[in-house]
Amino acid sequence: MKTTALIMAGGRGERFWPVSRERRPKQFLSLTEDGETLIQKTVRRLLPLVSPEDIYIATNAAYLGLIAAQLPELPPENILTEPCARNTAPCICLAAGIFRRKYGDAVMLVLPADHLIREEACFLESLRSAVQAAGTGKLVTLGIRPTYPETGYGYLHCTPGEGLRDVTQFLEKPASETAEKLVESGEWLWNSGMFAWRVSAINAALRRYQPLLYAQLMPVAGAWGTPEFSRKLADIYPTLPDSSIDCGVMEQAENICAVPCRFGWDDVGSWRAIERIGDADREGNCLRGDVVTVDSTGCTVSGREKLIAVLGLQEVVIVDTPDALLVCSKRSTQDIKKLLAALRPQHCEVL
Amino acid sequence: MKTTALIMAGGRGERFWPVSRERRPKQFLSLTEDGETLIQKTVRRLLPLVSPEDIYIATNAAYLGLIAAQLPELPPENILTEPCARNTAPCICLAAGIFRRKYGDAVMLVLPADHLIREEACFLESLRSAVQAAGTGKLVTLGIRPTYPETGYGYLHCTPGEGLRDVTQFLEKPASETAEKLVESGEWLWNSGMFAWRVSAINAALRRYQPLLYAQLMPVAGAWGTPEFSRKLADIYPTLPDSSIDCGVMEQAENICAVPCRFGWDDVGSWRAIERIGDADREGNCLRGDVVTVDSTGCTVSGREKLIAVLGLQEVVIVDTPDALLVCSKRSTQDIKKLLAALRPQHCEVL
Repeated sequence: MKTTALIMAGGRGERFWPVSRERRPKQFLSLTEDGETLIQKTVRRLLPLVSPEDIYIATNAAYLGLIAAQLPELPPENILTEPCARNTAPCICLAAGIFRRKYGDAVMLVLPADHLIREEACFLESLRSAVQAAGTGKLVTLGIRPTYPETGYGYLHCTPGEGLRDVTQFLEKPASETAEKLVESGEWLWNSGMFAWRVSAINAALRRYQPLLYAQLMPVAGAWGTPEFSRKLADIYPTLPDSSIDCGVMEQAENICAVPCRFGWDDVGSWRAIERIGDADREGNCLRGDVVTVDSTGCTVSGREKLIAVLGLQEVVIVDTPDALLVCSKRSTQDIKKLLAALRPQHCEVL
Repeated sequence: MKTTALIMAGGRGERFWPVSRERRPKQFLSLTEDGETLIQKTVRRLLPLVSPEDIYIATNAAYLGLIAAQLPELPPENILTEPCARNTAPCICLAAGIFRRKYGDAVMLVLPADHLIREEACFLESLRSAVQAAGTGKLVTLGIRPTYPETGYGYLHCTPGEGLRDVTQFLEKPASETAEKLVESGEWLWNSGMFAWRVSAINAALRRYQPLLYAQLMPVAGAWGTPEFSRKLADIYPTLPDSSIDCGVMEQAENICAVPCRFGWDDVGSWRAIERIGDADREGNCLRGDVVTVDSTGCTVSGREKLIAVLGLQEVVIVDTPDALLVCSKRSTQDIKKLLAALRPQHCEVL
């Protein structure tokens, strides 16, 4: 059976401001030394399993130029332009309809465009297991073996054992103490937001658990490849409620299983990710650019040409760009959206 | 009796890096909104009492161009170029010798170039009192009524009373608890480093308490105005030990008195001074430039065109310049010299 992929690339990457901007969010940036952007990495990692003509990108119209420039190998018609952001369920539902129209049935991988994966061979192996499991009709999620009690992720409770495991419970963003217990138990995996399923299986699940969404989007998907498609999409999509595939389908369906993975995954959800993916010095500082630290520990600094001198600071994030400088305590990195709201009235040019 | 002034302008202003640089230290910068530099302010404040031709600047050769540009009203021969930095005693001794040669006797004011004074009318009144007291042969220091228990200053113990007071004890940089007691007692003043004395009185004191220094510098001062002067100064000055007028003369002499002053004085000794001289917002943040703060208190931020966004920080100093950015905890502002030492090997271009 053919393997296809949908890459979701509509995110705004706000928590990576000021490097990530509305016009160029983090999936279109390189956060690593190699210069490859996150979305380029995401596509390249898939190529051993999926042909470029079977890889689709869902994004918003503002990013069409970036995608064409960064991913010239993809057919232009494989870029699905969402008229507005409605979270993952409508996006996946539309793509599942289009894939059924185009492929009949196929295995469909669903991947966010902006995740980092350290061990790519290991990732590919997990992906192959997921494709195999999806072939049997299961809705498969890639579950990450937790390495610390992160409170910002969703957790999956799984039946014991190695290899493919059935998912028995979802838990979103646990409190700190709960997260510690989940990690200690060994029974929970992080929900990575990466999925594999047959086109027929996800369509069946959507029809059952999201009948309204399904009924509204199927006529749109049916117009794929015709002049009507864009107009129908523009009419319907903005009327849809925001809903995630986790809440809308996965937490309700019964044929959910997880491939337990450990391939050095990071969703790069905030500036704190840099300390996980970068190399810290002996004082726990992660420094990029021309940076000198004295009496400072646990700081993350991202600069360019300009010298950045850090003195007597603990757990501070400093990000310098040509037109905006962020200085932020590490514990506040999740509050960058609050900062951006404060900036919006007077400083929309730097958002 | 004529009133003359010596302005000491050889300081390097290191603790105001990165705004203050070796090539343009803080006395040549404006730290206020009016654009007037600290040394320009210092000269202007004196003009009601001292004619420009009787104002002398002691500095190092690197700053001759800055002084000529910023103080065109001073005669070029009034700039005394120190071949190297030897602290205040040699500098004052040389000037006292020159003033005796030129004026016979006169009242001599001695002032650092880099202090800020908020209430200038009040300052002038104090200066007049000091000149009057100096006329009687006393060595007069301007003592500042302390407004908080600063541990970085020297303190003067004075006899009780209003008006001119005799100084009975010097105490340099007390510990925090001691400083609190000194301030509470009401008997101690801050030593501002601003002095008034007759040329004859300071020469007599130098001859008595610093006989070696006096003996070495008098022949140099005697050559003032001749082609020999520069060569003699260059031969002798580097051989002199570093010594301050406080340790070398004031702490030993008996005819010391203080004019108690309250004219909003600040020696602008570190970035913390900005919170004393600037206007803080309701969160205690002192912001200059294009700065937005969220969940932050007690921060001092100095920027330019670039937006600086501050999130979740307490008591942090941020100073942005075109080629160097400092981010520093407030309690570390006195350690900037340590930072500069760390920068020297690789980054001398920003010092």
